[in-house]
Amino acid sequence: MNPVDALIDALPGGRVLTDRDVIDSYARDQTYLEPGEPLCAVVAQTRDEVAATLRWASEHRVPVVPRGAGTGLAGGATAVEGCVMLSLARMTAIRELSPADEIAVVEPGVITADLDRAAREHGLMYAPDPSSYEISTIGGNLATNAGGLRCVRYGVTRDSTLGLEVVLADGRVLNTGRRTMKGVTGYDLTGLFVGSEGTLGVITAATLRLRRAPSVPPITIAAEFPSPRAAGDAVAAIVAAGCRPLLLELMDRGTLEAIDAWKNIGLEPQVRAMLIAQAEGDRPEEAALMERLCEQNGAGFVAVSGTPEETAELIGLRRLAYSAKERLGACLVEDVCVPRSALPAMITFIEEAAARHDARICTVAHAGDGNLHPVFIFDRGLPEPPPGVWAAADEVFRAALDLGGTLTGEHGVGLLKRRWLGLEAGPVVTEVQQGIKRVFDPLGILNPGKAI
Amino acid sequence: MNPVDALIDALPGGRVLTDRDVIDSYARDQTYLEPGEPLCAVVAQTRDEVAATLRWASEHRVPVVPRGAGTGLAGGATAVEGCVMLSLARMTAIRELSPADEIAVVEPGVITADLDRAAREHGLMYAPDPSSYEISTIGGNLATNAGGLRCVRYGVTRDSTLGLEVVLADGRVLNTGRRTMKGVTGYDLTGLFVGSEGTLGVITAATLRLRRAPSVPPITIAAEFPSPRAAGDAVAAIVAAGCRPLLLELMDRGTLEAIDAWKNIGLEPQVRAMLIAQAEGDRPEEAALMERLCEQNGAGFVAVSGTPEETAELIGLRRLAYSAKERLGACLVEDVCVPRSALPAMITFIEEAAARHDARICTVAHAGDGNLHPVFIFDRGLPEPPPGVWAAADEVFRAALDLGGTLTGEHGVGLLKRRWLGLEAGPVVTEVQQGIKRVFDPLGILNPGKAI
Ligand SMILES: Cc1cc2nc3c(=O)[nH]c(=O)nc-3n(C[C@H](O)[C@H](O)[C@H](O)COP(=O)(O)OP(=O)(O)OC[C@H]3O[C@@H](n4cnc5c(N)ncnc54)[C@H](O)[C@@H]3O)c2cc1C
Ligand SMILES: Cc1cc2nc3c(=O)[nH]c(=O)nc-3n(C[C@H](O)[C@H](O)[C@H](O)COP(=O)(O)OP(=O)(O)OC[C@H]3O[C@@H](n4cnc5c(N)ncnc54)[C@H](O)[C@@H]3O)c2cc1C
Repeated sequence: MNPVDALIDALPGGRVLTDRDVIDSYARDQTYLEPGEPLCAVVAQTRDEVAATLRWASEHRVPVVPRGAGTGLAGGATAVEGCVMLSLARMTAIRELSPADEIAVVEPGVITADLDRAAREHGLMYAPDPSSYEISTIGGNLATNAGGLRCVRYGVTRDSTLGLEVVLADGRVLNTGRRTMKGVTGYDLTGLFVGSEGTLGVITAATLRLRRAPSVPPITIAAEFPSPRAAGDAVAAIVAAGCRPLLLELMDRGTLEAIDAWKNIGLEPQVRAMLIAQAEGDRPEEAALMERLCEQNGAGFVAVSGTPEETAELIGLRRLAYSAKERLGACLVEDVCVPRSALPAMITFIEEAAARHDARICTVAHAGDGNLHPVFIFDRGLPEPPPGVWAAADEVFRAALDLGGTLTGEHGVGLLKRRWLGLEAGPVVTEVQQGIKRVFDPLGILNPGKAI
Repeated sequence: MNPVDALIDALPGGRVLTDRDVIDSYARDQTYLEPGEPLCAVVAQTRDEVAATLRWASEHRVPVVPRGAGTGLAGGATAVEGCVMLSLARMTAIRELSPADEIAVVEPGVITADLDRAAREHGLMYAPDPSSYEISTIGGNLATNAGGLRCVRYGVTRDSTLGLEVVLADGRVLNTGRRTMKGVTGYDLTGLFVGSEGTLGVITAATLRLRRAPSVPPITIAAEFPSPRAAGDAVAAIVAAGCRPLLLELMDRGTLEAIDAWKNIGLEPQVRAMLIAQAEGDRPEEAALMERLCEQNGAGFVAVSGTPEETAELIGLRRLAYSAKERLGACLVEDVCVPRSALPAMITFIEEAAARHDARICTVAHAGDGNLHPVFIFDRGLPEPPPGVWAAADEVFRAALDLGGTLTGEHGVGLLKRRWLGLEAGPVVTEVQQGIKRVFDPLGILNPGKAI
């Protein structure tokens, strides 16, 4: 029997998709990367269907590329030649939400913001909020250890993950972690799967930590700066003063122009960067301090939001940043992260690299974490970024590492950053990671060629 | 050449200890467990000495038991027959402390409280504070993923660990993690080593996250209850009300009596349990709410500390709890952790188990995390706990698991809890963990027979 027929036999009707156009719609993420041609796609609805698919894949040595919503920015969910695209997007149940224990048990296809909304009904929240949270899935967030705006305060996805149900490459089910706040029985397998980009197993359920939502609406500040460097200095000052903002985001002129061109925000010519900061609603003195520190570092105009609507609008603009840039051309998105004190230096370097290579770079940053997204914009007609963009990107990666930073703060390595991996991970790390990969996936069928 | 002579040759003078009495003083931790007889002890002063020791151990197939201060409560640092006890206690440098980046780079022998004190000089703190923090080492804390009083607010040791330098079993050096707040390059090796109890590698340096120390002294509450169950209910109410205490500790009557017998705290007969809670100094309304919730759940008397001195005294008493019990006899310390809503049920179960088996159990709990330490006290003359203690301990473990909990919240599995491991970790987990162990330690020389 042809392998695909065997798979169709092994699953309930309608799970295996073989129509070329349909499959193609599962083959890409948000990068420009050209996918390989998948054999078929599977849209799983239960853990057992995932297990059956993986048993089949092991038997037939077919590569498996897990996929959530395909919003990834690193090529993690990009099809490899002859693979099955395994979509978890239909596993959308929130199985349990316990206000008493402040946890939720969810399936991987749950949209991030849906979980947050469900938690809010109980005065809780799901903290990790990538800008994509209205479209990304929890499974994708877990597999990339996604960050977001609120992470400066509440940590990344791993910090909200207590336990996982994972299907291994051979179809066996592994349960990791726990429902409790603490636990040290055995090795931290939960943490190992978070951020593993679908290369160690397929996540079919997660026990997540919820947090108490602030009861008073936050105070939001938007400060305009004459240079990104000045905004970076303000960030460093805010951190050094011991403020604990709920979020602290930076946008450069290019980003603001892209948003202005789309949404007409009335951007003034002298504004070269904007900082958005949020303090807890019952900490007006912290909001005032952040405002003062912005002014001391050269902010021309500082607006303090009054109403929740104004706040939502401001944060909404920030969340549009990426889509606004996409309107300008194809995007190569970097995700470097540096020690927070190095933020101003990194910003300056990015500007210089752009100038040196005549590359168009717009930068947004989860500034409170030192995590920058320089977005290189290039002609959509080109099959891949032109040499000037690669040269600038390369310099930015190296500068981040020189400053004590890392290649990727939250998007993952995927396919896109593999060529730089050797700069950060030495030979011992590489060998150890490959050893771990072999423990979980001895045949190498899970998302081959990605992440490590 | 005799293997020990080869080791002496491979290291600077004075590092290898062969005097039987001296070696014996390195062979135990705080458990009653009888150690095997070590071949020798090594007191390493540098990473390269650790590497040389491990290369030698690999060559001669000698088991290596890493050791910090030996304050462990699970037998993790208990000598195995014919091993080398590798002490990291002399590697005590704080190599770097960066207030701007809020990180420290330290050697494993640094005493936990010493790092905290060094950080306080810059308005920062090192959050994880096991009760043993004046005597335990950072290396031991990392290897056990130690918790502590402040963990209810700031998380456990893993949550403060950004990167590690580890010497592998064959002497190679592995650098994991980063200096940045976020990072997803490759698998989370840092998290894997934290809590691995010396079975995957020897930690020779760590990059740790510091946190801003509260600028206002906290408000501390001590509430006396007519039953531990009532105190447990108060904890559940405090959590459910959305309070975010800086610490939330529970002591039962037995514990209070032990402290009273030693320090004469004037314990009244009707007091069956005490809760110590702490709110931020600038959140008096939260302190008042916690006070009210204690009263509503039956607290007879609630004291609110005025001065930092009073607070220090109160917390000091809590930190004495274990030593006070040791004065009463030999101790078997459990460390179960349950979902927070299950705390009252767990407390009740422990009391019943004690009565059923006529076992003397005193319980303290990091109650805000659902982490309980029932301490079984038995006759110091006995070589190991009598059958009634084992029977009660066994029931407590099983009850914790039935309540959705775990065997060990913070002390680790070590030797002591291995016989129950199978109840919590299924066969797939066990196989995967053994696979990981083989990646790092193919000869099985690192702390064999512990943890997994
Ligand atoms: C507009 C926009 C804004 C963004 N902002 C942010 C941001 O602020 N922070 C941030 O971190 N990211 C951000 N991203 C990137 C992206 O949204 C995240 O990486 C997200 O976590 C991906 O989720 P997904 O469901 O789309 O996963 P996919 O893209 O489908 O997959 C991502 C990776 O996860 C693996 N995977 C997916 N599901 C599973 C599973 N169940 N089991 C195992 N592996 C699985 C895939 O194989 C792939 O390697 C943004 C993207 C866009 C388009
Ligand atoms: C009075 C008292 C109170 C306590 N309170 C708490 C508490 O509140 N919370 C808590 O979590 N624990 C508590 N403990 C337990 C103990 O203090 C902790 O487990 C602590 O982390 C052990 O540190 P140590 O330096 O003594 O390690 P050791 O006991 O020497 O070793 C512990 C484990 O770590 C391994 N190890 C040590 N150093 C290294 C290294 N550099 N590399 C690799 N492996 C290493 C050892 O092999 C062993 O498996 C308490 C103990 C006592 C006696």
